Amino acid sequence: MKKGIPSVAGNSFGELFRITTWGESHGRAIGVVVDGCPAGLDLSAEDIQHDLDRRRVGQSKVTSARQEEDRVEILSGLFQGKSVGTPISLLIWNKDADSSKYEPIKDIYRPGHADFTYEMKYGFRDYRGGGRSSARETACRVAAAAIAKKLLGTIGVQIYGFTRQVGSIEAQSIDIDEIERNPVRCPDQEAAKQMEALILAAKAEGDSMGGVVEVVATGVPVGLGEPVYDRLDADLAKAIMSINAIKVLSGSEHNDAFYTDASGRIRTRTNHAGGMLGGISNGEDIVVRLAVKPPSSISKSQHSVTKDGMSVDLEVHGRHDPCLCPRAVPVAEAMVALVLVDHWLRSRAMHHL
Amino acid sequence: MKKGIPSVAGNSFGELFRITTWGESHGRAIGVVVDGCPAGLDLSAEDIQHDLDRRRVGQSKVTSARQEEDRVEILSGLFQGKSVGTPISLLIWNKDADSSKYEPIKDIYRPGHADFTYEMKYGFRDYRGGGRSSARETACRVAAAAIAKKLLGTIGVQIYGFTRQVGSIEAQSIDIDEIERNPVRCPDQEAAKQMEALILAAKAEGDSMGGVVEVVATGVPVGLGEPVYDRLDADLAKAIMSINAIKVLSGSEHNDAFYTDASGRIRTRTNHAGGMLGGISNGEDIVVRLAVKPPSSISKSQHSVTKDGMSVDLEVHGRHDPCLCPRAVPVAEAMVALVLVDHWLRSRAMHHL
Amino acid sequence: MKKGIPSVAGNSFGELFRITTWGESHGRAIGVVVDGCPAGLDLSAEDIQHDLDRRRVGQSKVTSARQEEDRVEILSGLFQGKSVGTPISLLIWNKDADSSKYEPIKDIYRPGHADFTYEMKYGFRDYRGGGRSSARETACRVAAAAIAKKLLGTIGVQIYGFTRQVGSIEAQSIDIDEIERNPVRCPDQEAAKQMEALILAAKAEGDSMGGVVEVVATGVPVGLGEPVYDRLDADLAKAIMSINAIKVLSGSEHNDAFYTDASGRIRTRTNHAGGMLGGISNGEDIVVRLAVKPPSSISKSQHSVTKDGMSVDLEVHGRHDPCLCPRAVPVAEAMVALVLVDHWLRSRAMHHL
Amino acid sequence: MKKGIPSVAGNSFGELFRITTWGESHGRAIGVVVDGCPAGLDLSAEDIQHDLDRRRVGQSKVTSARQEEDRVEILSGLFQGKSVGTPISLLIWNKDADSSKYEPIKDIYRPGHADFTYEMKYGFRDYRGGGRSSARETACRVAAAAIAKKLLGTIGVQIYGFTRQVGSIEAQSIDIDEIERNPVRCPDQEAAKQMEALILAAKAEGDSMGGVVEVVATGVPVGLGEPVYDRLDADLAKAIMSINAIKVLSGSEHNDAFYTDASGRIRTRTNHAGGMLGGISNGEDIVVRLAVKPPSSISKSQHSVTKDGMSVDLEVHGRHDPCLCPRAVPVAEAMVALVLVDHWLRSRAMHHL
Repeated sequence: MKKGIPSVAGNSFGELFRITTWGESHGRAIGVVVDGCPAGLDLSAEDIQHDLDRRRVGQSKVTSARQEEDRVEILSGLFQGKSVGTPISLLIWNKDADSSKYEPIKDIYRPGHADFTYEMKYGFRDYRGGGRSSARETACRVAAAAIAKKLLGTIGVQIYGFTRQVGSIEAQSIDIDEIERNPVRCPDQEAAKQMEALILAAKAEGDSMGGVVEVVATGVPVGLGEPVYDRLDADLAKAIMSINAIKVLSGSEHNDAFYTDASGRIRTRTNHAGGMLGGISNGEDIVVRLAVKPPSSISKSQHSVTKDGMSVDLEVHGRHDPCLCPRAVPVAEAMVALVLVDHWLRSRAMHHL
Repeated sequence: MKKGIPSVAGNSFGELFRITTWGESHGRAIGVVVDGCPAGLDLSAEDIQHDLDRRRVGQSKVTSARQEEDRVEILSGLFQGKSVGTPISLLIWNKDADSSKYEPIKDIYRPGHADFTYEMKYGFRDYRGGGRSSARETACRVAAAAIAKKLLGTIGVQIYGFTRQVGSIEAQSIDIDEIERNPVRCPDQEAAKQMEALILAAKAEGDSMGGVVEVVATGVPVGLGEPVYDRLDADLAKAIMSINAIKVLSGSEHNDAFYTDASGRIRTRTNHAGGMLGGISNGEDIVVRLAVKPPSSISKSQHSVTKDGMSVDLEVHGRHDPCLCPRAVPVAEAMVALVLVDHWLRSRAMHHL
Repeated sequence: MKKGIPSVAGNSFGELFRITTWGESHGRAIGVVVDGCPAGLDLSAEDIQHDLDRRRVGQSKVTSARQEEDRVEILSGLFQGKSVGTPISLLIWNKDADSSKYEPIKDIYRPGHADFTYEMKYGFRDYRGGGRSSARETACRVAAAAIAKKLLGTIGVQIYGFTRQVGSIEAQSIDIDEIERNPVRCPDQEAAKQMEALILAAKAEGDSMGGVVEVVATGVPVGLGEPVYDRLDADLAKAIMSINAIKVLSGSEHNDAFYTDASGRIRTRTNHAGGMLGGISNGEDIVVRLAVKPPSSISKSQHSVTKDGMSVDLEVHGRHDPCLCPRAVPVAEAMVALVLVDHWLRSRAMHHL
Repeated sequence: MKKGIPSVAGNSFGELFRITTWGESHGRAIGVVVDGCPAGLDLSAEDIQHDLDRRRVGQSKVTSARQEEDRVEILSGLFQGKSVGTPISLLIWNKDADSSKYEPIKDIYRPGHADFTYEMKYGFRDYRGGGRSSARETACRVAAAAIAKKLLGTIGVQIYGFTRQVGSIEAQSIDIDEIERNPVRCPDQEAAKQMEALILAAKAEGDSMGGVVEVVATGVPVGLGEPVYDRLDADLAKAIMSINAIKVLSGSEHNDAFYTDASGRIRTRTNHAGGMLGGISNGEDIVVRLAVKPPSSISKSQHSVTKDGMSVDLEVHGRHDPCLCPRAVPVAEAMVALVLVDHWLRSRAMHHL
């Protein structure tokens, strides 16, 4: 069979705050190089480890039972506890990497996975644990974004995400303090319990659940975003869509009326537009909603073919998340943080005279 | 009031097939420079004019009554009827530019428009016809994409778009030949009539309609897309979201089963994934659906403020499209073409050894 | 004969202050789009025309006798006399374009010219006036750099260039006011006369002269330049080398001793390093020296081949500059200005915390 | 004192074959991520180690006596002994890092070093061993370029470098096999002996020597280079100038006459232009000559100031190279290889139709 066409690689993200991630799921390590962090930022491995731990599997029954201990090491870019203006290299060694169970399916293209397209593109593929296409790569995004979040914190930007919906169950109230108290990361305690039950029921049947995750950024300055192509909403859409198993959700059709608040600041009464107008932040909260697909690796039998074109029925057993929403929360926060910090640095370059 | 933060400009799109657009709605001209078109492509102004005419307003009652005659001029990059490998500069002179009606609202921020954010970002703004934030800029995308389409044609890729839905009326069948025969660009003759009636009814009430546009690319080679950040779906999302008034729609949650067709080619039985797996084209049709907002400039009264923070009620009259879908079709096709041609060139760089 | 390999195009320069030039020598027009100029800069066509006139041929006996009247038009990016933060599009119509004299040599590769490599790279070439490889393209650099110079002026950076050497005659003193008073742009009146005589003597014999041009930038802030690859000296070297007929000259081997001046500022006693240390500006004058080759199109007979590989003797007559130095001065200034303004904008992005 | 202006970071090189280096001289490790290596290249750590060993210090009396054992580890991007199309991450642990001797000079700006400009740019600096400004960073370039060389080898390009001149002693003949047999990497055995004596004499006096290094690339396809800004010669100039202590040397003023060789290929009789015309490779050998400065850290007393502006006399003792030429050879080869492989990949993207 004719092989497909591979493309020039695209493992960097951001223009000024630029991250480059590397590593395969079952390789020796994964890592990320952050180039473009201004000097003088207080930073430690603990700052990064916190978000990494939030992304980790094995946190509860509603996520995968694999035990990964992702310890980040900072190999460069810090001096005396501060960023020194040079690239910050972060590394996480791979530990839990039994590749033997991938041997039987190394010649089969799993539906909903990148097996087929990677093999067509590159001529062959690292089939162990999905190789580079594994969601494990998102650990690097989360690690790099922890630095972005600290930077954004210096100008008063805060970012938080939560699970808004699982199946048909939706959060009815938003209590930010509640988010990290329950395993689904839902800001509504009651809804959280129902979501958990729903996910466990699906898991028991070898099925999985999709949902909706929401990320909010507060304190974002007016004026971020670069018309006409690097609009803030366009860059957020790309960032979110670059996460495995994510589809961006649509915003509202309604206009937001302007008013002047008590302090004399121009505001909008509603925030249908999610904090952006014409692709530029307007000073309201940035709100991004993303639809999370049910995981592809479900235990039910699926039709597929081998690399030689032979028809097979495939059942994939293993330790997979029955619902990706809880772990998608820190990853989605990460992508929002990376876009915002990049646009903030870009905006510093271009203050009007 | 404290001014917002402007950003470094973002008027280029594409990595290898790179377009740079320029021009304001009521300035002297608009234009685009295409850098990265391989030498040897047969090209004439007529090739470009065709798609420009499809985007033009004044085509029917369901679009704006303004008469723009957008004649494209090719100023460089061709020799003896072929691209010569140097930048192709396209220019369209602005003609219909009566700016007087914008004087009364030059200090008012229209809801749903970029007036406020542009002024915060840049310190002041060209308020005439929306300046750079006007949809007029999309003429340049369409012009550049006409070149992209011709290039893609040389490898057998065809792109077409249509209006799938207006309000709650949806096309029930897809007859490609029908698309350009009716003013809403709907591939279903019956639905087209109902859509047209719906739009005209809204227009009569000073209201406007949203809808859904779909773009399909056939013949796309397997292997386009660059993990992990420049995935084909991520780049398409950004491209589509960079169009004014567009929100990307979500895809399906279902996996596509593989099979081997009669010719021995590995295919998927369904195409829920829209022709991509893991962010890489899989050889099926690329399908992109986008939600089109009802235009912001509706004649109904809206609350707003002046630049001094004074409260005003605003009614915007003028020649605006009551439904953007028909004109969004060629623009959406353009953005899909620009992404695909760029990824095709990127893929040429990196054939595996 | 096997055709060579063409490359992805490279007609843009700068990361944040990015220019994209287009146009062939005998095409309809040439032009440049400047993306990344901050809003609020006072700007008029006259600001740009001044430097364009300095670059123009036909200024004296020591430059070409061609009469080009390069009138720049600003097509976008200004509003009320100021940059508005959107792309600034500049256009110059081509007038003096009699291509007939290039017909006889359209199949011959001129030594020292890009005829052969362009044809190998692109499959064919626009042979009229050198097409894109003509030095006419530098008019666009000069036009764009006039904007860069105005921007740099707002932070106190001034840039001037002059002819330091022609043949073996070197300027013995530097009187800045003298530079534009003589046709060779030499800051030493006496040396200027000798240089002029030397050039005219060479011209009379159908020969041409090389020389040395120097560009100085004063008032450059400490800290411009981006280790380890985008060092200021590395970017200046690339910028200068991208001019036709230029070879960069080497700097000094000596270290500059530090001292503290009366105002408490840390300075270097000498400036062997040309204002840079470790690729970063140190606050002293930036000094760049470039060697200018004698023009390739000399009237003496040269050996060459046709595209079919036939041996020919070639004599190129025409209106060519007997010495490129005077006209190289504004072009070299332009490239230095473009590098400095880009690095200044980059530095604004990354103030340490 | 007012702090200087830091810039957005620039630790990546190349457009399609893109390397990102990281690490400080006395930090935990240094490394490089290579993104853009096509899949299918046979590669092992030994391939990379070979060139790293050539760059290593402690190889002879004419280089530094420090003992560094730079063992490269490949952490990602390979599968079954081949590149798999994903980023290749290379890491070298730092071992010999006694920072104590830098304590006494941590507040002093060494002449000819980047101490002052780094501190102005970033607000503070890692003074241990020069931090990021150390030549140790070039190990990463050499490691990444070993991959570039293997890739170039698949299309028949070979790259070699040598010391052409030390002080006033110049190689009189070029015997490629001789280069690696003597400690100065001179291709002329007799000249090599004289050069070695000259360097050792300088070393005995606490002085150091400059020289000239030459790099030759054979088998380069016609057509590499991207007018008008990314000319091959301009990119080579930038690449070479980005090496510490290097100044590019000028080329020749003479044109190369064309002829057709016995095989019908169009050639030039001479190669004054170093294998490029109009910034595009012409199929002859690419030849780059670079002037290497005598090392800055000489034992003689130099005038300087502390960060508080106090005047000091500074003598720097330590294990420094008395002549950088031998170790500059593999680094210069590396930069030439990185430019050529990048332009080769760019050329693949843009074959004319």
